[in-house]
Amino acid sequence: MNKKSLNELNLVPFVSVDDMMKIILDIGVEEMLAGITEYLDEDFRRWPEFDKTPRVASHSQEGVIELMPTSDGQIYGFKYVNGHPKNTKDGLQTVTAFGVLSDVETGYPLMFTEMTILTALRTAATSALAAKYLMPKGSKTMAMVGNGAQSEFQALAFKSICGIEEVRLYDVDAAATEKCMRNLEGRGLKVVPCDSEQMAVEGADVITTCTADKQYATILTDNMVGSGVHINAIGGDCPGKTELHKDILLRSDIFVEYTPQTRIEGEIQQLDDDYPVKELWQVMTGEVEGRTSEKQITLFDGVGFAIEDFSALRYLHDQLQRTGHFQNLDMLADPDDPRDLFGMVQRAAKNNDGE
Amino acid sequence: MNKKSLNELNLVPFVSVDDMMKIILDIGVEEMLAGITEYLDEDFRRWPEFDKTPRVASHSQEGVIELMPTSDGQIYGFKYVNGHPKNTKDGLQTVTAFGVLSDVETGYPLMFTEMTILTALRTAATSALAAKYLMPKGSKTMAMVGNGAQSEFQALAFKSICGIEEVRLYDVDAAATEKCMRNLEGRGLKVVPCDSEQMAVEGADVITTCTADKQYATILTDNMVGSGVHINAIGGDCPGKTELHKDILLRSDIFVEYTPQTRIEGEIQQLDDDYPVKELWQVMTGEVEGRTSEKQITLFDGVGFAIEDFSALRYLHDQLQRTGHFQNLDMLADPDDPRDLFGMVQRAAKNNDGE
Repeated sequence: MNKKSLNELNLVPFVSVDDMMKIILDIGVEEMLAGITEYLDEDFRRWPEFDKTPRVASHSQEGVIELMPTSDGQIYGFKYVNGHPKNTKDGLQTVTAFGVLSDVETGYPLMFTEMTILTALRTAATSALAAKYLMPKGSKTMAMVGNGAQSEFQALAFKSICGIEEVRLYDVDAAATEKCMRNLEGRGLKVVPCDSEQMAVEGADVITTCTADKQYATILTDNMVGSGVHINAIGGDCPGKTELHKDILLRSDIFVEYTPQTRIEGEIQQLDDDYPVKELWQVMTGEVEGRTSEKQITLFDGVGFAIEDFSALRYLHDQLQRTGHFQNLDMLADPDDPRDLFGMVQRAAKNNDGE
Repeated sequence: MNKKSLNELNLVPFVSVDDMMKIILDIGVEEMLAGITEYLDEDFRRWPEFDKTPRVASHSQEGVIELMPTSDGQIYGFKYVNGHPKNTKDGLQTVTAFGVLSDVETGYPLMFTEMTILTALRTAATSALAAKYLMPKGSKTMAMVGNGAQSEFQALAFKSICGIEEVRLYDVDAAATEKCMRNLEGRGLKVVPCDSEQMAVEGADVITTCTADKQYATILTDNMVGSGVHINAIGGDCPGKTELHKDILLRSDIFVEYTPQTRIEGEIQQLDDDYPVKELWQVMTGEVEGRTSEKQITLFDGVGFAIEDFSALRYLHDQLQRTGHFQNLDMLADPDDPRDLFGMVQRAAKNNDGE
C-alpha cells in the first residue's frame, strides 16, 4: 500500500495504464464493475443535476476525436476519446482515451487518468445497469455478436450485475471468439462459441451487439430477433455507424442515455427525429415505464454519455487512497505569489545556477 | 541533453511545470516568445484551414472551466483552462491550464503539457503579433495597466517582437507594480512605475490593459485615450468581464481573433451584435486593412482563441527533442492484439504473481 498526499497544490494524481491494471487486479474486475454500476446508478438517478451537452467532436476522414465534458455543480469531468477503426491494421487501438476529474469550486484538476480500460469497464457497467432495469426477469443467457475488446467486460458485467450464466459468442473473425473464450475461462460463465448470428441468438434472453465497423451494417436482421428479448446495442456510436436492421427498431421499445446525442450517433439515426424513445434515467427514477410485458422487445441503444465517464472517474478517484496505485504529476504552476508566475520561472533559473 | 523516444505506442511525452521552466531557461524567454509568434503568424495566415468553435465552457458561481479544441486536419489540440478570480485569496492560481496535441490520423496524443506558463507566453505573443500589424510605426512606449501574472510576459513580448523600449506600469495594488519592476530588472527595458492610469498612459504609443476582476470594470475611461494609440485589451475574457469604457470602443477600429467568441467574451459584449469588427488574421493576409492613419485608435480585443494554444503546443512539441525536458507517461493501453484489452489486464495479473 502506497499512500501519497493528494494535497500538494501543484500535483495531480495520475493513474497510468499500469496503475489501472493494478487497481483492477487489487479490487477484482467483477467487484469493480459492480462498484462502477453503483456510482452510475446514483448519478443516473440525479440526471437533471448535470450539465449535459452532446460530445464535442472533431471528425476527419480517418476517424474522430471527441471531448466529453459534464458537471454536477460540485465536480467536473471530461474524457478525451478517439475512434479510428483503421488503427487496428497498424497495431494501434481503435479507441484510446484519457480523462480528468476537477473541483468546480477552484477549477483545479483532482485526477488525471488513462481511460481506455476504464471506458471498457464503464461501458459494460452501463449496459448491465440498463439490462437490470429492462431485461426479462430471470434472464440467464446472453448472445454476444462481436467478440472484440469490449466483449469480456460485457460478459462479466452481465454475470455479476444481471445474473447471466451463459454467453453465446459469435464474431465474423473466429479468432476473436477464441480469444474471448480463452479470456473468460475459469470465470464461472458457461461459454458457447457459435458459427453464426442465428446460432448465437438461439434461446438468448439478452442479445448484445458490439462490433466496430464504421459503416451502416446489419449485424442483426429482423427475423433473428424473437419476442421478449432485451437487445443491448452498443457498437453503433457515431454518425453513419449502426448495427441493427431498421425493422428491429420499429418492433422495439427504445431506451437511450441522452436523446439529442443518440439521435446523432445511435441506432435511432435510422429513424425520424421525433420517433419516441425513453431515457434510461427516467426508468430508474420511475418516471417512465421500462419493460411492461413478457413479449415486449426492449432495446438499449447505448452510445456512451459523458455522465457515465463522470461516474467512472468519481468511482476511480474514491479508490486512489485505498489502492495507492497512482503517481503525482507536477502539472499545475504554483508560484508562492499567484501574481508572480514570471518570478517563479526566474527563481527556477537561479536555483539551476546554484545561486 | 536528454534524448528520449517519442515512438513507443503506449507512451506520451509529458511536459511538467518544472520541465516548462527548464525549457524557457534553455531557450530564453524572449527567444521563446519570438518562436511562438512565428508559429502564430503561420497559423493565423492559414486560418480558414482550422476547425473553429467557441470554447466549451462550464460556468459556476465561483468561475469557469473551459475546453478549447481545434484542428488543422493534420494535428488536433485542445486546452483545459479554468478561471477562478477568488482563488487568489486562498493562495491558488486564478488560471491553471494543461493541454494536449494529437495526431488526427490515429487520434493518438503526441504530447501532454502544463499550460499555465505556456498560456502566459502565447497570450503575450498573440498581443505582440497583433500590435506588430496595428500599432503606430515607431512605437517605443507602452503603458501597462494591471501588473499581475501576465504583465512581465507582455512587456518582454512587446520588447522582442515590437521594439518597445519603455513600459509604464500601474496597478491598483502597488505591490504588483513593485513585483513587475523587480522581475523586469536587467532585461533591457526602461520601466516607469506610475501612481495612476492617467500617468501611465501619458505619452504611450501602446496601452495594454490586463486586469483580472470578474465584473464590468472601467480600467480606462474615454478621456485617457488620445488619438493614434494602439490598445491591447486582454483582461476581458469572459461574459460580464470587460475593462474599457464603451466610448473608447466607439472611437476605435476593433480587431478580434474569432468574432463569435469575442462577441460573447470580449470588450465588444458592450456593443450591438452586428457592430463591425475585423478579424486579425485577415489583416495579416491582407484581406482587410489594419491601421490606415496616424490618428486612428486601433483596439485588439483579445480573449484568447484555441488556434493560439494550437500554435503554442505545436511550437513546444518541436522543442521536445532539442531540449529533452519531458518524461514519458504510460497513458495509452497498448495490448499486443488491439482486440485483446482484457487479456492485457489478465497478463498483468500473471506477471504480478510471477507466473
